Amino acid sequence: MVVQAAARAFDLNGFHNTSLDDIARTLGVTKPTIYYYVENKEQLLFECFLAGLGPIRQGIAAVESSAAPGRERLNEVVRHYARAIASQFGWCMVRAEDQDLGPELRARIQSLKAEIDRGMRRLLAAGIEDGSIEPCDPKMTAFAMAGALNWIAHWYRENDPMTPEELAEAFVEVFARGLLPRRDGQRVGRPRAG
Amino acid sequence: MVVQAAARAFDLNGFHNTSLDDIARTLGVTKPTIYYYVENKEQLLFECFLAGLGPIRQGIAAVESSAAPGRERLNEVVRHYARAIASQFGWCMVRAEDQDLGPELRARIQSLKAEIDRGMRRLLAAGIEDGSIEPCDPKMTAFAMAGALNWIAHWYRENDPMTPEELAEAFVEVFARGLLPRRDGQRVGRPRAG
Repeated sequence: MVVQAAARAFDLNGFHNTSLDDIARTLGVTKPTIYYYVENKEQLLFECFLAGLGPIRQGIAAVESSAAPGRERLNEVVRHYARAIASQFGWCMVRAEDQDLGPELRARIQSLKAEIDRGMRRLLAAGIEDGSIEPCDPKMTAFAMAGALNWIAHWYRENDPMTPEELAEAFVEVFARGLLPRRDGQRVGRPRAG
Repeated sequence: MVVQAAARAFDLNGFHNTSLDDIARTLGVTKPTIYYYVENKEQLLFECFLAGLGPIRQGIAAVESSAAPGRERLNEVVRHYARAIASQFGWCMVRAEDQDLGPELRARIQSLKAEIDRGMRRLLAAGIEDGSIEPCDPKMTAFAMAGALNWIAHWYRENDPMTPEELAEAFVEVFARGLLPRRDGQRVGRPRAG
């Protein structure tokens, strides 16, 4: 509840322009009530980050033991990722600056981000190995995919005509095809809903 | 000179943690000297944004009248874009928050960003039309590409073993191929240097 209100306030007005007083007022509680949950505004930003990242980490853990081809497993992670960034926590996950945090929380965020990056590279490598993914540079490809997904937080809004699920499917398709024309009439993944 | 020093300081310490005094000190000048160039810190951020965006806008303008296939023209813009984000202005171009600016500068930045987005969609549509680009949703594809490119500012550092030119070529290749295996043995664009 506090974390959700904070995420919304940071998204609307920016981290630096939001005080714990603002968040308390939005919730109709007193500032001490906020301090019952978190020590300071930095920790609240960190909690927002964790809340958004959770589903992506779970998504990676869930496909880790799956026997499905690498590309299908990667697509599942892309879906979790896109939905997380399109959620109310998306802004905090990507637009919050490392500079806004003290060294300890900063190090924890960097370590969590690195864990996601390793997970995506592993799935890319697995897909190249099993033939379900076109040979590529896993490092650059993971950077490009994460960047495209993270950037959703800059343009997607709750009232967008596209649902987070449709958005996720559109990104799966964009990543699949590539710009170079396919001369063999291949079709991508599962059919679009609707 | 002032703009470059500002870009470097914002990148290192964040916009909110950098004062005009800090920038003056770095340059070994007095604060009034800074005020000779800009009215305030917000305007300096805007100037950094403009300095970074210039080459991308020029890149789009340069290919506008070219007779080359859409994909080649788009690749040229991707190269300009990647190099701009890997430059010292990259941070200001993508990590600066709209909330840091007043309504007038914010509106100008949004209008410039929208111009770049329209340019990329036009090139995608032209490439689909002339058969050099695989049919796709130009809006989602332009969002994904811009996101991947903008995110470079979050991970690329001046001392990276990859030069901005190599980085640009790697992104051209990632965008070209897509994850779905190519059954027809197609090869991508120009050969890599080195």
